[in-house]
Amino acid sequence: MSTHRFAVNVTPKPGILDPQGRAVEGSLGHLGIDGVSAVRVGRRVELTVDAADESAARAVVERLAGELLANPLIEAYAIESISGASSTVGVPAGAGNPV
Amino acid sequence: MSTHRFAVNVTPKPGILDPQGRAVEGSLGHLGIDGVSAVRVGRRVELTVDAADESAARAVVERLAGELLANPLIEAYAIESISGASSTVGVPAGAGNPV
Repeated sequence: MSTHRFAVNVTPKPGILDPQGRAVEGSLGHLGIDGVSAVRVGRRVELTVDAADESAARAVVERLAGELLANPLIEAYAIESISGASSTVGVPAGAGNPV
Repeated sequence: MSTHRFAVNVTPKPGILDPQGRAVEGSLGHLGIDGVSAVRVGRRVELTVDAADESAARAVVERLAGELLANPLIEAYAIESISGASSTVGVPAGAGNPV
């Protein structure tokens, strides 16, 4: 078994209305910030997966992203590995996973 | 001037309660997914900046992240360049800035 940390980036699909992004754009003037456009606001979910190997871990994340984290009608997602795997093979009982 | 696309990843700081993350963890059993832990849910904001160069563009994003996109008391942010710069005005061939 090994432990893998992933991020799932969920963003509104092109053409889908993004009220949060519009709100950010509307606030730029108040801050005196110029030159910023095409703001899209999505979610970023970071999680740790214990699985036999990297590919099994990624399959779990893929399923989670498609079934729970993103709405496939209006959102796209991308999965990103955000840290090296830490092998836990042979770790004595009681050595918990980090939180 | 050149155009740069960035993402700002905003995540709850360690130790800060993350009810959305707990909700995801609570749903894993219903989906029959094992081995997932330490779920943290944050935001991902993607935006385009027109600026003189990459470093000026990044400064704009830095300011925006610190003043509008993240709450510094409870959230951390990381800025990521997500696409090549596209030069737009009068840049001689070969003078593009690195990404």
